[in-house]
Amino acid sequence: MSLPTLDEMETPAALVDVDRMEANLQKVSAYLREHGLRWRPHTKTHKVPELAARQLQAGASGVTVATPREAEVMGSVADDVLLAYSPVGAAKLARLMALPERVRLSVGLDSREALEGLREAASRAGRRVGVLVELDVGMRRVGVTTPEEAVALAREVVAAEGLEYQGVMFYPGHIRMAREEQGPALAEVSRKLGTFLEALRAAGLEPPVVSGGSTPTLWRSHEVAGVNEVRPGITPFFDRTTAWMGVCGWEEVAYSVLATVVSTAVPGQAVIDAGSKALAKEELPLGGYGALLERPEVVVRTVSEEHGILDLSHTEWRPRVGERVRVVPNHVCVSVNLQDALWAVRGGQVVGRWDVTGRGRGPA
Amino acid sequence: MSLPTLDEMETPAALVDVDRMEANLQKVSAYLREHGLRWRPHTKTHKVPELAARQLQAGASGVTVATPREAEVMGSVADDVLLAYSPVGAAKLARLMALPERVRLSVGLDSREALEGLREAASRAGRRVGVLVELDVGMRRVGVTTPEEAVALAREVVAAEGLEYQGVMFYPGHIRMAREEQGPALAEVSRKLGTFLEALRAAGLEPPVVSGGSTPTLWRSHEVAGVNEVRPGITPFFDRTTAWMGVCGWEEVAYSVLATVVSTAVPGQAVIDAGSKALAKEELPLGGYGALLERPEVVVRTVSEEHGILDLSHTEWRPRVGERVRVVPNHVCVSVNLQDALWAVRGGQVVGRWDVTGRGRGPA
Repeated sequence: MSLPTLDEMETPAALVDVDRMEANLQKVSAYLREHGLRWRPHTKTHKVPELAARQLQAGASGVTVATPREAEVMGSVADDVLLAYSPVGAAKLARLMALPERVRLSVGLDSREALEGLREAASRAGRRVGVLVELDVGMRRVGVTTPEEAVALAREVVAAEGLEYQGVMFYPGHIRMAREEQGPALAEVSRKLGTFLEALRAAGLEPPVVSGGSTPTLWRSHEVAGVNEVRPGITPFFDRTTAWMGVCGWEEVAYSVLATVVSTAVPGQAVIDAGSKALAKEELPLGGYGALLERPEVVVRTVSEEHGILDLSHTEWRPRVGERVRVVPNHVCVSVNLQDALWAVRGGQVVGRWDVTGRGRGPA
Repeated sequence: MSLPTLDEMETPAALVDVDRMEANLQKVSAYLREHGLRWRPHTKTHKVPELAARQLQAGASGVTVATPREAEVMGSVADDVLLAYSPVGAAKLARLMALPERVRLSVGLDSREALEGLREAASRAGRRVGVLVELDVGMRRVGVTTPEEAVALAREVVAAEGLEYQGVMFYPGHIRMAREEQGPALAEVSRKLGTFLEALRAAGLEPPVVSGGSTPTLWRSHEVAGVNEVRPGITPFFDRTTAWMGVCGWEEVAYSVLATVVSTAVPGQAVIDAGSKALAKEELPLGGYGALLERPEVVVRTVSEEHGILDLSHTEWRPRVGERVRVVPNHVCVSVNLQDALWAVRGGQVVGRWDVTGRGRGPA
C-alpha cells in the first residue's frame, strides 16, 4: 500500500501517534499489573482489530465490545470477547452465536427477557456462553438496582442450561470529575458494589469476575474493593475530555484529526474542514468541540457538519487558507466512529493505515 | 436481494417512509415551481445517489454536495454538481477534477487562495469549472463579509482562465426560529444580500445565479429578494428540529431509527439500543436527543454511545425488553452519516435498501 504524506493527505483525516499510543498501552498495562487487575479494553473506542491485537500483546486478557459487528472483527484477533451490552433480538443473537468456536463469548445483561433470549439462542447453537449480571452502582442507565434482583438473576443464570455464571459487571460512567474530586463518588461506588457482592456471597453466588472500570476512574480502579477486571476504552488515544479531567497529560493524547483551514473571510476566526462529521459534537464544560494539538489555547468554538470554527481570541497565531492543523476532539470514541480509517503517524511520517472495520453493522 | 422484515431486522437501523418522502419531495418541488426558484437539493443529508435521482425526477435542476466523495457518488446520477464548500488542498482538487467530463462542476469559495488552487487544478486538468462567490449574510461562518470583497473576488474569478463566474451563494443557517418569528431575520438577510447584489451589478458583475436557502427558511425563500436557487438538505426526511421549528408537521417526518428496548432495570425509564452512534448527540432547546415517532411525548433524555434513555414521565406506556420503537433524531443529516444503509419502508413493509455510499472518503 502506498501511503500519502501528511502534506498531501486529504482532510479531514484521523491520525494516531503510534509512539504515544504504545506508551499509553504500556502505562495502563503496568498500572493494572501492579494492582493485580485484569485488563479487558473496550474496543468500541478504536474498532480496529489490529489495535486490539496490540492491546492483547501489551497484556490484555481479552476484549470488550459493544455490538455484534465489533464482536466479529475483534473475534478475528481475540479468543475472549465480552459483549458488555444486553443482546436483545434474534438478529443480534444469531450473529453472536455464529462467532468462531474458538472465541469464548460472554455477555452482560440485566433482565430475565435478555437471559431467556440468550439461553434459547445458545441452546439452538449448541454454544456455551458466559454471563455477567450487570449492576447499577450509581449511573442509572442499565443494571439491576438492588442486591435482591442481582441474586435472583444470578440464580436464573446458574439454572440456565448452556449458560455459565461468570460474575458481575458495572460501569461507573457517572464519575467524570477530575482525579482529586473522585474520592467520595468512588467510595460510594465501592459501598454500593459491596452490598451487591455481600448478597451474592451470602446466596452462594460469589462472582468469579467483578468487572468494572472506566477511563475517567482508571488510575483509581484499585480503590474499588472487589473489582478484579477493568474495561477502559479511551486509554490508547485519550482525548480532550480525559485530558481536561486529568486522566492524562495533553502530551499523552495520541489521536487527532488533521484538518485544513478553508476560510478566514470572517475576521477573528478561521474555519477548518472538520466539523461534526469528523469531530462529532459532544459538549464539554470547558466549552468548544476540540482544541488544536499543538496550540491547545485554540478551541473549536462551534461545529457544523463539515466546518469547525477556530476561536483565535486567545492566540496571536493567524492561519492562512491552506494551512493544516491537528484537532483533538472532546470525545475520541465518537470521532473514530466517523472515520473510514485511522492513519498511523510516527515523527511526522505516515507509517500505516488501519481501516475502522468495526463500524456500523458491517457488510450486508 | 432478500430484505428483512421490520420485526427481524437488526437494530439500530435507519428507516425511510417512502410515501412520506415522496410527498415531501412533491411539496418542495411545487412550492419552488410556484415561485420560479431553481431547486438544487443538498445531498449531504442522505448521501444516497438513488435519492438524488428521485430529487432530480421531482424537478431538481442539479445537486449540492459537501465533499469530493459526495461529488463522486452524486456525479453518477447528476450532470450538474455544486460543491458548496471551498475546495482547498491538492487531494480534494484532484478528485474533483477527475469527475466524469459529463458533469458540470461548480464550487463556492470565499478566498483568493481557494480560487488560485482551483484555477491551477482546472488548468492542469483542462476542465472548465463554475464558481460562486460565497457571501456572508449574517451567519458569520464563511463567506466574504463586504460588498467590496465580493466585487474584488468576482473580478478575479472573471479574470481566471478556465473558471466561469456563475454568481453568488450564501447560507442563512443562523435563522433557526419558528416560521412566524423568522420575518425580521429574513428581512435583514434580504437587506444584506441586496447590498452585495447592488455592488456587483454596479461593477458589471450581475450574478446569473443567486443561490441561497436552507430548510428552516425554506417556505419563505421567495421573500428574499434576488434569490433564484435554493439548496435545502433536510426536506426529503425532516427531523425533530425542523418539526419543532414548524417547517414540517410531525406526520411529515419520513426518517426514524428503529431501536429495541434492551433494559428496563432502572425504574421510570427504558433503555434502547440507539445512542450517539445512531442518533448523534446534537442539542435542541426542547431538550433530549430525539422522540418516538409514534409517541412524540416520549423523549430520548440522554444518549451514550450505544444507549438511549427514554423518559417515561409523560406517558403511561411501559415498554417491555424486546419491544421496538422508532426514534426521530434531532438532526437527520448527522444520524444518516452514522448509518451503513437506509431501509425503505412502505406500510410496515421493508421495500428496499439504499447504501449510504457518500459517507466519509470512500474506498481508499
